[in-house]
Amino acid sequence: MQNLKMVIRYDGTRYSGWQKQGNTENTIQGKLESAISRIAGQAVEVHGSGRTDAGVHAMGQVANVKLKTAVDPAEFRRKLNDLLSEDIAVTEICEVPERFHARLSAVRKTYQYRLYIGDAKPVFDRRQVTVLEPLPSLNIEAMRRAAEYLRGIHDFTSFCGNPSFKKSAVRRIDSLEIIEEADELVIRVTGDGFLQNMVRIITGTLIEVGKGAMRPEEIRDILAAKNRKNAGPTAPAKGLMLVGVEYTPS
Amino acid sequence: MQNLKMVIRYDGTRYSGWQKQGNTENTIQGKLESAISRIAGQAVEVHGSGRTDAGVHAMGQVANVKLKTAVDPAEFRRKLNDLLSEDIAVTEICEVPERFHARLSAVRKTYQYRLYIGDAKPVFDRRQVTVLEPLPSLNIEAMRRAAEYLRGIHDFTSFCGNPSFKKSAVRRIDSLEIIEEADELVIRVTGDGFLQNMVRIITGTLIEVGKGAMRPEEIRDILAAKNRKNAGPTAPAKGLMLVGVEYTPS
Repeated sequence: MQNLKMVIRYDGTRYSGWQKQGNTENTIQGKLESAISRIAGQAVEVHGSGRTDAGVHAMGQVANVKLKTAVDPAEFRRKLNDLLSEDIAVTEICEVPERFHARLSAVRKTYQYRLYIGDAKPVFDRRQVTVLEPLPSLNIEAMRRAAEYLRGIHDFTSFCGNPSFKKSAVRRIDSLEIIEEADELVIRVTGDGFLQNMVRIITGTLIEVGKGAMRPEEIRDILAAKNRKNAGPTAPAKGLMLVGVEYTPS
Repeated sequence: MQNLKMVIRYDGTRYSGWQKQGNTENTIQGKLESAISRIAGQAVEVHGSGRTDAGVHAMGQVANVKLKTAVDPAEFRRKLNDLLSEDIAVTEICEVPERFHARLSAVRKTYQYRLYIGDAKPVFDRRQVTVLEPLPSLNIEAMRRAAEYLRGIHDFTSFCGNPSFKKSAVRRIDSLEIIEEADELVIRVTGDGFLQNMVRIITGTLIEVGKGAMRPEEIRDILAAKNRKNAGPTAPAKGLMLVGVEYTPS
C-alpha cells in the first residue's frame, strides 16, 4: 500500500465544492478520484483535509490517497495534471507513512478572504474577490479590535453555518489579521480547525463592525450567545481561499 | 466640447479585440461607445491608443472621448463602471485639452507577455498566461542576448503580422527585459509603437532562441531580411497585456 500526500490548487468557481455528494460528479474530490482511478487502474478514495463549499478556492488544499500498486510520484503527478482540467492542479506530491490522513493528521489551517475596496472593479481577479456594493467606508481599526475577541479558544457555535451541528464547536484561532493591500482588504485567519461557513461568517461579522453597524466589544456577546442569529451575515463563497494546511513532521 | 482621457483595464478573453469591426459589437471599443452614448445621451466615438487583438488584455489602455455636454468626470466614471460588464473597468478618468488624442499623442507603450514555466498549471491566472507544452527548458541568457539585438531603432517588417502593411515599419524599442518570476517568465517591452502582432512575434522568436532552435545573433539577419517568414511563430494572444501608454505632459 502506497500512501500519497498531494497539495491541490483549484479555482472553485465551476464546482459544487470539495466533497462528493451522491451522484454529483461536479466536485473537486470527484474529479480527483476519477482521474486517479483512471491512472492507477483501481477504484480509489481521496481524503481531503476538509470540505470547501461550492465556489470556494484553494491554493493549498491537502489530500491523501492509498494505491495498491506503487507509482513514481513525480510521473503520477504529471499524468494527473494532464487529465485534470485547467482549473485544478496538483502542485506537490510525496509518499507519506501509511498512518498519514489528510484530515485526521492536520494540525492547523489558514484561510484568507479577499474584499475589493478599490473604486473601480477587480477585472482580473473578479472570480476570487468579493466586491462590497455600495462601497462602504470601513473602519479597519474597529475590525482589528473585533478580531482580537475572536482570537484564542472559544465555542464558535454563533459562527457555524450548520444548524444541526451536534459535536463540539470549540476551536482555537491562532491569528486573525486584517491586511490592507492596494485595492483590497484581506482577512487572513489561522486556527486548529474551522466549522462550516466559519470564515465566511467571521468575515461578514467583521464587515458589520467595519461599517459601524456593530461595536467590536459585541463579539464577546455574540460568542457567549452560541446562536448563529447573533453574528453577521455569511460573506459570499468566491472571496474565500484555503491557503494551506499544516501537519506535524512525521 | 469636453475631452475626457480614460485609463481602461480589461480581460480580453471574451472579446474580438479593441477595435470595432463592421457589425461586430463584441469589441472593447464597441462596449465603451455604447455605454458612454447611453450615459451622455449622444452618439460618441472612442479613440484608443491603438488596437489590441482578440484575446489580448490591458491593465492600462488609454482612450479619449469628446462630449458635447460637460460631465463630472468622477460621477461619469462611476456610472460607466456600473454599465460595463465585470471584465471591463475604467480605472482613471480626467479632463484633457481638446487637442489630446489617445493615439496621436501617445509617445511610448509598454506591453508584457507572461509565459508559465512552472511544473504544474497556472490555475488562477490561466486566462492571462501562456503555457508552453511540452515544457521546454529555456536558455534565458541566450534569450537576453537575442533581446539586445532588438533594442534600438530598426525596421521591424520581419516582426509584423500584417502582410499588406505598407507604411514605415521603423520602430524604436527602448527596453526589452526578460524577468524570471516564481513560475513565470515575463517579457516586458517598452517602445514608441508596435506593429500588428509585433510583441507576440518577438515573444515567439525569443522562445525559439530559448529552446536553442535559433542563435541570438540570428536576430540581426531576421531584422535585415524584412520578411515575416524569417522570424519565429506568433505567440498566443492570451499571454499578452498592454501595461500602459505614456504621453508627454500637456
